[in-house]
Amino acid sequence: MTRASIHPDLQALSFLLGTWAGSGLGEYPTIDDFAYEETATYSHIGKPFVAYGQKTKREGTGEPLHSETGYFRPAGGSRLELVLAQPSGILELHSGEIHGQSIELTTTTVVTTPTAKEVTTVQRSLSVDGDSMRYRVLMGAVGQPHQLHLTALLSRIA
Amino acid sequence: MTRASIHPDLQALSFLLGTWAGSGLGEYPTIDDFAYEETATYSHIGKPFVAYGQKTKREGTGEPLHSETGYFRPAGGSRLELVLAQPSGILELHSGEIHGQSIELTTTTVVTTPTAKEVTTVQRSLSVDGDSMRYRVLMGAVGQPHQLHLTALLSRIA
Repeated sequence: MTRASIHPDLQALSFLLGTWAGSGLGEYPTIDDFAYEETATYSHIGKPFVAYGQKTKREGTGEPLHSETGYFRPAGGSRLELVLAQPSGILELHSGEIHGQSIELTTTTVVTTPTAKEVTTVQRSLSVDGDSMRYRVLMGAVGQPHQLHLTALLSRIA
Repeated sequence: MTRASIHPDLQALSFLLGTWAGSGLGEYPTIDDFAYEETATYSHIGKPFVAYGQKTKREGTGEPLHSETGYFRPAGGSRLELVLAQPSGILELHSGEIHGQSIELTTTTVVTTPTAKEVTTVQRSLSVDGDSMRYRVLMGAVGQPHQLHLTALLSRIA
């Protein structure tokens, strides 16, 4: 990604850095279950944030599905912030905690454009063990209560 | 970027697509004027949005300065939406218009994390003429009235 040294404030998040690929499962009461393949990058430029982006495609057909992009910001001690944009017209502002090589984030604010679907709450859990990353996304959207939406397992490939 | 065909709803924004590089000038009452070099990418994957990202560095020293990432969304007719995340902990939701090869966007919502600086309004104007792009960013922030912040001229390099 870069040859810059990791910023001291970013050390606690350095376990995220790299390019990750793997697969996931999506579910929600309003849609059919689906399987997806994902590639995600977590990079830094020597400043105290991690730049994040991911893309998914439908398993089998390769049809592009979701993508999202944003930044993880250490906020002092074990505190963490995430600002995230999605092409579906959704902005998520998260606040959370780092525990070892795990992250737990919950939205404090979700903003959607006039043409986007309604999303009210998003919760993102992520943990890294060696070169394996697991994450779960829970979501309250389109009138449904907050519940599991995505589960994925990725491997660090670079 | 991709070999996918441009989505019909994206035709009016196709003038943005490519990799752009050039330089800009920043000013604001609370900071010293500064000159920067920028690289920006506008790409698509066959869906009706443009993925956008840029990075700037200080002219001369190459010190990394700003970066931002998000998505432009056609919203019917000449209407346009932009969702944008910045590592400084700022999320911008814009609404605006496409006129020929020009875009005019104004924030309807700005959300900032608890550790971010206060930003209240952002206005982004952008126009493309052949392989040249000019943009201006006006901003109301840290108690200052809405005013010019950035002016830049980029060239399409890919």
